[in-house]
Amino acid sequence: MNSKIFFTGAAALLCVAGAMAQEKKDPPSLTEVWKPEPRVITPGASASSAPSDAIVLFDGKSTDAWVGTDGGPIKWDIADGAMTVKGGSGEITSKEKFGDCQLHIEWRTPAEVKGDGQGRGNSGIFLMGKYELQVLDSYNNRTYSNGQAGSIYKQLIPLVNASRKPGEWQTYDVIFTAPRFNEDGTVKMAARITVIHNGVLVQNNATLIGSTQYIGIASYEKHSDSEPIKLQDHGNPVSYRNIWVRKL
Amino acid sequence: MNSKIFFTGAAALLCVAGAMAQEKKDPPSLTEVWKPEPRVITPGASASSAPSDAIVLFDGKSTDAWVGTDGGPIKWDIADGAMTVKGGSGEITSKEKFGDCQLHIEWRTPAEVKGDGQGRGNSGIFLMGKYELQVLDSYNNRTYSNGQAGSIYKQLIPLVNASRKPGEWQTYDVIFTAPRFNEDGTVKMAARITVIHNGVLVQNNATLIGSTQYIGIASYEKHSDSEPIKLQDHGNPVSYRNIWVRKL
Amino acid sequence: MNSKIFFTGAAALLCVAGAMAQEKKDPPSLTEVWKPEPRVITPGASASSAPSDAIVLFDGKSTDAWVGTDGGPIKWDIADGAMTVKGGSGEITSKEKFGDCQLHIEWRTPAEVKGDGQGRGNSGIFLMGKYELQVLDSYNNRTYSNGQAGSIYKQLIPLVNASRKPGEWQTYDVIFTAPRFNEDGTVKMAARITVIHNGVLVQNNATLIGSTQYIGIASYEKHSDSEPIKLQDHGNPVSYRNIWVRKL
Amino acid sequence: MNSKIFFTGAAALLCVAGAMAQEKKDPPSLTEVWKPEPRVITPGASASSAPSDAIVLFDGKSTDAWVGTDGGPIKWDIADGAMTVKGGSGEITSKEKFGDCQLHIEWRTPAEVKGDGQGRGNSGIFLMGKYELQVLDSYNNRTYSNGQAGSIYKQLIPLVNASRKPGEWQTYDVIFTAPRFNEDGTVKMAARITVIHNGVLVQNNATLIGSTQYIGIASYEKHSDSEPIKLQDHGNPVSYRNIWVRKL
Repeated sequence: MNSKIFFTGAAALLCVAGAMAQEKKDPPSLTEVWKPEPRVITPGASASSAPSDAIVLFDGKSTDAWVGTDGGPIKWDIADGAMTVKGGSGEITSKEKFGDCQLHIEWRTPAEVKGDGQGRGNSGIFLMGKYELQVLDSYNNRTYSNGQAGSIYKQLIPLVNASRKPGEWQTYDVIFTAPRFNEDGTVKMAARITVIHNGVLVQNNATLIGSTQYIGIASYEKHSDSEPIKLQDHGNPVSYRNIWVRKL
Repeated sequence: MNSKIFFTGAAALLCVAGAMAQEKKDPPSLTEVWKPEPRVITPGASASSAPSDAIVLFDGKSTDAWVGTDGGPIKWDIADGAMTVKGGSGEITSKEKFGDCQLHIEWRTPAEVKGDGQGRGNSGIFLMGKYELQVLDSYNNRTYSNGQAGSIYKQLIPLVNASRKPGEWQTYDVIFTAPRFNEDGTVKMAARITVIHNGVLVQNNATLIGSTQYIGIASYEKHSDSEPIKLQDHGNPVSYRNIWVRKL
Repeated sequence: MNSKIFFTGAAALLCVAGAMAQEKKDPPSLTEVWKPEPRVITPGASASSAPSDAIVLFDGKSTDAWVGTDGGPIKWDIADGAMTVKGGSGEITSKEKFGDCQLHIEWRTPAEVKGDGQGRGNSGIFLMGKYELQVLDSYNNRTYSNGQAGSIYKQLIPLVNASRKPGEWQTYDVIFTAPRFNEDGTVKMAARITVIHNGVLVQNNATLIGSTQYIGIASYEKHSDSEPIKLQDHGNPVSYRNIWVRKL
Repeated sequence: MNSKIFFTGAAALLCVAGAMAQEKKDPPSLTEVWKPEPRVITPGASASSAPSDAIVLFDGKSTDAWVGTDGGPIKWDIADGAMTVKGGSGEITSKEKFGDCQLHIEWRTPAEVKGDGQGRGNSGIFLMGKYELQVLDSYNNRTYSNGQAGSIYKQLIPLVNASRKPGEWQTYDVIFTAPRFNEDGTVKMAARITVIHNGVLVQNNATLIGSTQYIGIASYEKHSDSEPIKLQDHGNPVSYRNIWVRKL
């Protein structure tokens, strides 16, 4: 395309007219883009606090945003501004559904260390109920690399081990891009994830191979654009607090 | 997650039961995935021919898939299995709309060389009516790099110049990923394009910055998921043939 | 940044001077980019033919570009412009090494159908000797979806099954982006692949999870930037021809 | 590939042997990956504090990590744990060079509001000295969308406006992927950036079109793998503190 040469088509004339209108601008303004104007939001008091457009899933008190395995109120322990896994009470599921999202979540493994490997401070955050960001006490606790804290369980090894000590609160800041499916169930775009663990990048827009499997390979099964978040009961009293999500 | 340790939650029991069912499989089969089964299509007689699931936009004869600038039949010249730009008759627009797609298209600039730079054998393929893959006689015809054949006009320089001589048929094989927008018009995912020119990769999953502009910077304006393809009348008698598209 | 306001820093003055120099340009030329000028190459006679900058690995006659399992000449059958797997003679390995590349390769499974599933017309193209693009007779021959023609073996299901009949030549056009590793062996960027099978897109810039494994999950092990291509001897007399690679 | 059928090649035998060795594993362990073991780092006291593997560019006191426009010590004002632009003293440049990196940086525009649009609280963070993440007082201060805080100047509009009030400290957490170039200067992979502004995602792995330009279109010019970070003197007394970078 180039409008300097001579031609007579209607579309071409429109194009030239458009060009003439634009030529009144000064050169620097030609690379200014004014639309759309990004909507204004109010950030939280700190970078870890929920901004004004976030959906708060747990503020330290109310568990209204969650249901237990029987569809009723969750049976985890609520104390000191935290929700703590009560072994055997089952996973908890958010009432709200999410697809692409930014998630902030804080978690703590027990100060009293018990067990080792996958048996120590084990829980998990299942994005869309299917894609597990591992929660584990990985402080001086070797397990398989794709099963430690910061891993996408049995899929993606974290770039570094940025774990805090047992009993200390840790943070995950997550940017999740949901998978897209074709009508026939094949994968149009695989899911992708960025994870910042305690301020340190551990997954860098990494691609997921499917929904988490304990045995055998993860694979994708077509699902809807948004699904609840689940937090796993793996028997260990892992605690959670300050959970908020922004839909992207 | 790890099911070897003891716990009693309902979800956990389901998990163990699932694991037990799977353990009957032999190890190699644990990484076999049987679903979905990709649908079967029939490829064309050659790699350039339309496969069974393609929408044929021009087969050498019928121009029924296109409309002219007045919404009626196109006024380009149809001869020898090709559609040729009739300068001043205006661009042509496909009736069918496309978003993510694979496009095959063949084009030819005039054997008789006239003009130079952007004035020689100029036309263009506007994906979604907005994103121009440049068509130009770039055989021994220097112009700005982001305006030569294989470029995304004024956005993306091709990796190499793989042009054929004027008067020879050339091919573009394109994989296009449409942009995604947020409700408020901001860009969720920018458009991406891969272009193979005469069998040679010239754009490698490159990212577009917006809809093509002749003056000033390209930028995105929210539009629907699928839009028609347009072929430009830039005044030069450029020809097209064998055009087919597969929706992705 | 914006140079319209008053300020006095040395860098700022340079910036204004640069701006003044540029302001002499007319508005359309402000979005022209002249450097770099893409190098000129000569495309092949058809889109399947090797362009001038390709390394030809098999032109129908010479097998000089390959070595057998003992490091000597390959023992496959060479006839009628094709190399055919001689069962038990072992895989063949390119002498040249490749990282990011565009690969064209043609293959044919036996016209006489024997066996089924993975036992019919099985071979494979190992990019970097590690990442297998499956070769299989997948015409009316169901196997696991991540093991059929067009799959990345046990990793990525093809978008469609675009197989030709046994005995017919088929094409793969591949754009491969090699993985990048950090010093410590963690993955900086996973490998990605686009595959066009008989002219039909079957892998769309899909992400690989690691080097191909028959048992257990694929994972990455750090390797160099370029590695040889290998063609598999899986016991079936699969043929290859017209193999060329462009380094990207 | 599939080892269940009979064949006799040397490579095949090796493959079967490997499979037998692996078959001793229990099914869940087949998807465990133990290598590499991610290196252990110590996160900062908070998610905003420098972790043990970060290079601290400004800790509130020393400016040793920077040089001024004359190659000597910087001339900005150092007080109260912050570096503040001294209008006319010029940009400052990090001594260390960076390519792919994670950057944390805090900045503050003057509490006393002066000017408007690009004239209010303007500075900028130039990654690799070339790619500007805009710093601007964008609190109730409309300018062009691709020039406000959180934008990549004249390239990428932020997803939202998450600005704090003038006089308040703000944070950018950045994940930057440097561009890759081919030998001949063409772009192998464009640069990408993720920006979290005050805890809110404003750039999501977005693709840059080139080095920042005030007039005309940004474009890439080949440069080395790592380059210094620059902070702009735009005449306004913008302050910076707590700057650290992790090489990725």
